[in-house]
Amino acid sequence: MNQKNYKMTIQYDGSRYKGWQSQKHTDATIQGKLNSVFSELEGRNVEVQGSGRTDAGVHASGQVANVRLTAEKSLPEILEYANHYLPEDIGIVEMEEAPERFHARLSAVRKTYCYRIFNSSMPNVFERKWMYQIQEPLDLEAMRQGAQYLEGTHDFAPFCSHFQKKKSTVRTVYQLEVLSKGREVDIVITGNGFLHNMVRIITGTLVEIGLGRRDCSEVEKLLLGGVRAEAGITMPAKGLILQKVEYE
Amino acid sequence: MNQKNYKMTIQYDGSRYKGWQSQKHTDATIQGKLNSVFSELEGRNVEVQGSGRTDAGVHASGQVANVRLTAEKSLPEILEYANHYLPEDIGIVEMEEAPERFHARLSAVRKTYCYRIFNSSMPNVFERKWMYQIQEPLDLEAMRQGAQYLEGTHDFAPFCSHFQKKKSTVRTVYQLEVLSKGREVDIVITGNGFLHNMVRIITGTLVEIGLGRRDCSEVEKLLLGGVRAEAGITMPAKGLILQKVEYE
Repeated sequence: MNQKNYKMTIQYDGSRYKGWQSQKHTDATIQGKLNSVFSELEGRNVEVQGSGRTDAGVHASGQVANVRLTAEKSLPEILEYANHYLPEDIGIVEMEEAPERFHARLSAVRKTYCYRIFNSSMPNVFERKWMYQIQEPLDLEAMRQGAQYLEGTHDFAPFCSHFQKKKSTVRTVYQLEVLSKGREVDIVITGNGFLHNMVRIITGTLVEIGLGRRDCSEVEKLLLGGVRAEAGITMPAKGLILQKVEYE
Repeated sequence: MNQKNYKMTIQYDGSRYKGWQSQKHTDATIQGKLNSVFSELEGRNVEVQGSGRTDAGVHASGQVANVRLTAEKSLPEILEYANHYLPEDIGIVEMEEAPERFHARLSAVRKTYCYRIFNSSMPNVFERKWMYQIQEPLDLEAMRQGAQYLEGTHDFAPFCSHFQKKKSTVRTVYQLEVLSKGREVDIVITGNGFLHNMVRIITGTLVEIGLGRRDCSEVEKLLLGGVRAEAGITMPAKGLILQKVEYE
């Protein structure tokens, strides 16, 4: 059986899905939709392996996955077939043959997420599904000061939803930027891995700083031994986009 | 009765509407939704006057309209009320008091439309509702040459869907640009007024030139006495956006 390993870059509007990971009792998952299409193509059950899960309602402009196929179709034919049968809110935007050992999750070394905030009291007709709206003006300078503390290698336990008993909660954030483009405020974070809800809790904490509800120095204290309850809220899923997954 | 005249800039995702103009037997029109909200506010029937109609499925980032209100609410209160009760795919992004004589349609002197094309065979997950996809590569230089003929004052009868018996079909196009941004091709046209489907037929003609199906010199011949059947197809509504309406 001549099996090839394909690497794909995938975009999705997560609005109507219960997240990336396939589930037994619903087909409303991104992975589930991809598994179905490739299983249909192969005439056997195949599983697409993502770089990691995204939660219900979270979007991706650059999720990466791999899948092993035996089909005799050419790469452009496979790509066309898959995009034809996938729903319109999921699309494979790049596909290439990868080395046999390539594994979208285990081989990933860096990921970049963006949390998009529409910071205005005006309506946001065209992008309302992919941005979270905050009407009160945000103090970006204070948010940037808070963000600085988070760059580097830290125990991010206070910025994680689930208590993880055994596994390490130490992660490295390579870059954390608070960008402003007109009425849009983007929180862009690159790291070697993210704990559950870490980006949404970090964003919630920075937003509370931006609204003047907490001081930016509290971030430093949290990193020196805080607990989840002391950090900010978990921001809603709709503003979060997985932008990039990088490999060696 | 202390009546004030308000000028509004309105955005809408036209996907699920039967166009701007209110209709008796459906409430799925932009004007109908605005009329309802302002009538509710006033406790009497009021009519919002747009700068002009947009067809079913056409979008706007800068439609302008005016409405005369007697409400004692302040302008920010009126704006907040209206945006609160409007559906999420219609939003008033600017509102100001205008002179009594201001009329969104009769006072308009220039309008700008943009036809957005996604020129790629890849999926377009996030903007698929506001761009029309063309997979084959477009020859932009040929399109630009064709576009040049259309700038200026001409009889645009061949670029109009309905035979208009008495009214003049002469219009002035101040600027017609074919812009390229990555995989996006935008046809941006500014004029003193547009005939029915004029932007969509001009775009259809330029697209046929871009695909090599007709020569750019045909545009000149059309303007010198062609008929509708000789021009290009009417492009689908979903790529068309009313961007700007200008006043003296």
